[in-house]
Amino acid sequence: MSVVPPAPFADLCSLCKDLSDLSAISGLLGWDEQVMMPSGATSARARQKAAMAAVIHEKATSKQLASAIAAAKQISSQLGPFESATVRDADRNYEMAVGVPSELERKIASKEVESVHAWVAAREKSDYQAFESHIREMLALVKEKAVSMKPSAKTYDTMIDVFERGMTAERLTEIFDSVAEPLKIVLDKVLDMKEKSTKKVHPALLGGDDWDVHKQAQLSKDICQVLGFDMDKGRIDVSVHPFTGGAGQDDVRITTRYSKELPFEGIMGTIHETGHAMYEQGRNDKYAGLPVSDALSMGVHESQSLFWERMIGQNVNFWHAVLPKIHEKLPHTKQVSAEDLFFAVNQVNRGFIRVDADELTYPFHVILRFELEKQLVDGTLDVKDLPSAWNEGMRKHLGVEVPNDKMGCLQDIHWPSGAFGYFPSYTLGAMTAAQLFQHLKTEVMPDVEDKLRNGEFEGVREWLRSEIHEVGSLYPSLDDLLQKVTGEPLNAQYFLQYLEDKYTRMYA
Amino acid sequence: MSVVPPAPFADLCSLCKDLSDLSAISGLLGWDEQVMMPSGATSARARQKAAMAAVIHEKATSKQLASAIAAAKQISSQLGPFESATVRDADRNYEMAVGVPSELERKIASKEVESVHAWVAAREKSDYQAFESHIREMLALVKEKAVSMKPSAKTYDTMIDVFERGMTAERLTEIFDSVAEPLKIVLDKVLDMKEKSTKKVHPALLGGDDWDVHKQAQLSKDICQVLGFDMDKGRIDVSVHPFTGGAGQDDVRITTRYSKELPFEGIMGTIHETGHAMYEQGRNDKYAGLPVSDALSMGVHESQSLFWERMIGQNVNFWHAVLPKIHEKLPHTKQVSAEDLFFAVNQVNRGFIRVDADELTYPFHVILRFELEKQLVDGTLDVKDLPSAWNEGMRKHLGVEVPNDKMGCLQDIHWPSGAFGYFPSYTLGAMTAAQLFQHLKTEVMPDVEDKLRNGEFEGVREWLRSEIHEVGSLYPSLDDLLQKVTGEPLNAQYFLQYLEDKYTRMYA
Repeated sequence: MSVVPPAPFADLCSLCKDLSDLSAISGLLGWDEQVMMPSGATSARARQKAAMAAVIHEKATSKQLASAIAAAKQISSQLGPFESATVRDADRNYEMAVGVPSELERKIASKEVESVHAWVAAREKSDYQAFESHIREMLALVKEKAVSMKPSAKTYDTMIDVFERGMTAERLTEIFDSVAEPLKIVLDKVLDMKEKSTKKVHPALLGGDDWDVHKQAQLSKDICQVLGFDMDKGRIDVSVHPFTGGAGQDDVRITTRYSKELPFEGIMGTIHETGHAMYEQGRNDKYAGLPVSDALSMGVHESQSLFWERMIGQNVNFWHAVLPKIHEKLPHTKQVSAEDLFFAVNQVNRGFIRVDADELTYPFHVILRFELEKQLVDGTLDVKDLPSAWNEGMRKHLGVEVPNDKMGCLQDIHWPSGAFGYFPSYTLGAMTAAQLFQHLKTEVMPDVEDKLRNGEFEGVREWLRSEIHEVGSLYPSLDDLLQKVTGEPLNAQYFLQYLEDKYTRMYA
Repeated sequence: MSVVPPAPFADLCSLCKDLSDLSAISGLLGWDEQVMMPSGATSARARQKAAMAAVIHEKATSKQLASAIAAAKQISSQLGPFESATVRDADRNYEMAVGVPSELERKIASKEVESVHAWVAAREKSDYQAFESHIREMLALVKEKAVSMKPSAKTYDTMIDVFERGMTAERLTEIFDSVAEPLKIVLDKVLDMKEKSTKKVHPALLGGDDWDVHKQAQLSKDICQVLGFDMDKGRIDVSVHPFTGGAGQDDVRITTRYSKELPFEGIMGTIHETGHAMYEQGRNDKYAGLPVSDALSMGVHESQSLFWERMIGQNVNFWHAVLPKIHEKLPHTKQVSAEDLFFAVNQVNRGFIRVDADELTYPFHVILRFELEKQLVDGTLDVKDLPSAWNEGMRKHLGVEVPNDKMGCLQDIHWPSGAFGYFPSYTLGAMTAAQLFQHLKTEVMPDVEDKLRNGEFEGVREWLRSEIHEVGSLYPSLDDLLQKVTGEPLNAQYFLQYLEDKYTRMYA
């Protein structure tokens, strides 16, 4: 049964789709900048991006859009669930955009460029003092923006909500508290087993000249297509920092990087980005260009990349499935077994750098940043004391002594670029991935491990598509989505159990 | 001495620069579509381009822009020549844009997609009848647009003016009349000499497996940089139809194509596009983003590509300069001399297809189209009679019998896409290139041939840069520009003389 939606809804859709097309263009500008643009075009591209942002801001806060939303709200009761979620989200997006003075947006955009620039130099020299005034100013601006977006909400909650819709600092504290101590016990246990074990990574898997980057690229591309990335509606390229971007759901572009020294970085990175990309490619066609088809949150996005990277790519059965391909493309691995590959991609180490962290230590990097952000925003921590607070936190959570600020509080681009509130999404994504996989295995597809071993990924992908991708932003938070899909809100126990089971078995 | 321009001028500049940045984004969308975009994104890209076009049209016809122009006109007498040309051109662009109803723009854009689509199918089957209604409708729409742009001007003049600013059908008739008969005599003479000559293209230069496309690409890239293309502000890629595009003067992107069967298509095509690209890269930085820095016309643009392709690339001294590079990159050419290469790239034939035509026959293809357009627009030729008029014209101008409409009036994309008035630019460009080179040789750089033989291209490039590229649209027509640079308006005699001299010497 198909009901023709009333005219006010159609008017709203048309404005939303226009905005979506303009955002897709911004996406292309960003992708091109990282992948194709000649170096001499940097400042021209900054101007182009600013011009585009101004156009989008103008349309996102226009009186025309406000009236269309108001008219659609009037007939909201006549609409189906996706349609009324569209009205709800159009309204939410409008309210968040219209509250922020364009002068403030402009100030943030220009400060961001300056701050990131200063951060690059400061990190290079491990000189936090040279960066201090920038993070202070950036934080103040982002706080101001959060207050103007939602004057009645708690400031840090608004910052989190931008990336992780419906999430609060209080709920995050609850989630992270439930996991920090037990995870520390698992980590200690695993590292202890590792130390006592005689098992070593197979020498053929340590990198070196045999790992030709062209062969790695071919292999990665093969794997990415086997998993289900649609090359008719996307591309794979190389960039310095891997990401997934592009120009809308019909044009999803993965980037990755390959090195001979870190032979799994390319393959695992590609699998990760493939997860992001399939979420984008899997958006609901029926509501294309409408806010309800948007990815729900960064945490959900990360759950999709980590589902494929960790639940699949770090699963021994996956390596059984792709072993012939590995042997074929990288002949020097002929003596290597699926177990060897599995072992190689599941190495745990206490380290300083978040992006190099394994799945067991990663949450501590995130929890540290969450604790610091909370204090920075409520004023109980001054930016001048950030390095010492950071180093103390690393001692507490991971038991390591940070040698310098380059390896410490200067390592990430998030704060320099104003993305306070972003970090929790990484771990929410990891936990969500584990909860989804556990549910899939016990309730939906009991033979999923056999399927993976046989290289049958379609069923898994289609399940994610129908349960997560096509659902888009229908349910307004991660907890709501998980409740719908798995019967309970986010529950970190699945994540803990997954880690304990896997690593215990690996060292058994 | 630097004078601060008055505030109304600065306001206008800011609006113009914004428009220029948005156009650059459109440029990128177009480049990406041809070079990078996955096939499944075709309709999404069409929507994105339409959204962008609507944004640009809105800004190009805004009341804010109209007031800024009016204010700047008031203080025009206080401005320098580039500044007042900026006001003049902003006004011209505004008037041309504001006259056209956006409904008509939309109709043309959507009809264009349909018409090009129908043309592709009709050309494939050489079925003019299947295309007739489309060209009829397209022509009617484009006429309507021309009338709305300049109600008091002659319709075909307005169509020409869009591409070749300041040009009229009357002046074109005068120029083409001065060249048609004498050129026919030269062509007959050259073909006669060719027939009687025993000189043949060297077998190593006929194409084949030795012409590895990767080696060709390397060679072309080398040559393009030697000529002066700045790779920090541009790229070279491969596309089905070579073109020069990109995202503004700091991001100029050449595309080309290579084949083993037509070994010079890639190299000569790259040189041609390099000429276009250096015009774009050579725009006046001081007036970046202002209309006065825009390329003056398609004819001037073509004069720059053809200057490098023909005056340089088809000059024997160029091949002396690059001979060692050719031998190095294509070892199978070791026995080939610069004279052999020169001879190979200067082959003349009577053919049916414009894009395959040599410099001697090309003007006849253009004159034919000009004559037909004139009659189509004034109604003396009905579109149903186009094929017979075409075939008769080919008989008259080139003495050939067109075998079918695919090789005849269905060969070009211009009419299907509504670009009536474009064709003359090709030959105006060729004539301008010859006139510029003759002036350079006799008045500016008497040793230019020696310089070319030594591979010293910088002086030539810098002369073009200061006389043409940086001058932009300062002088409002090709004739005005040539008057300034060479002391006389366009004079086709230089073109005739160049052709007669070169080919007579070649067969001597």
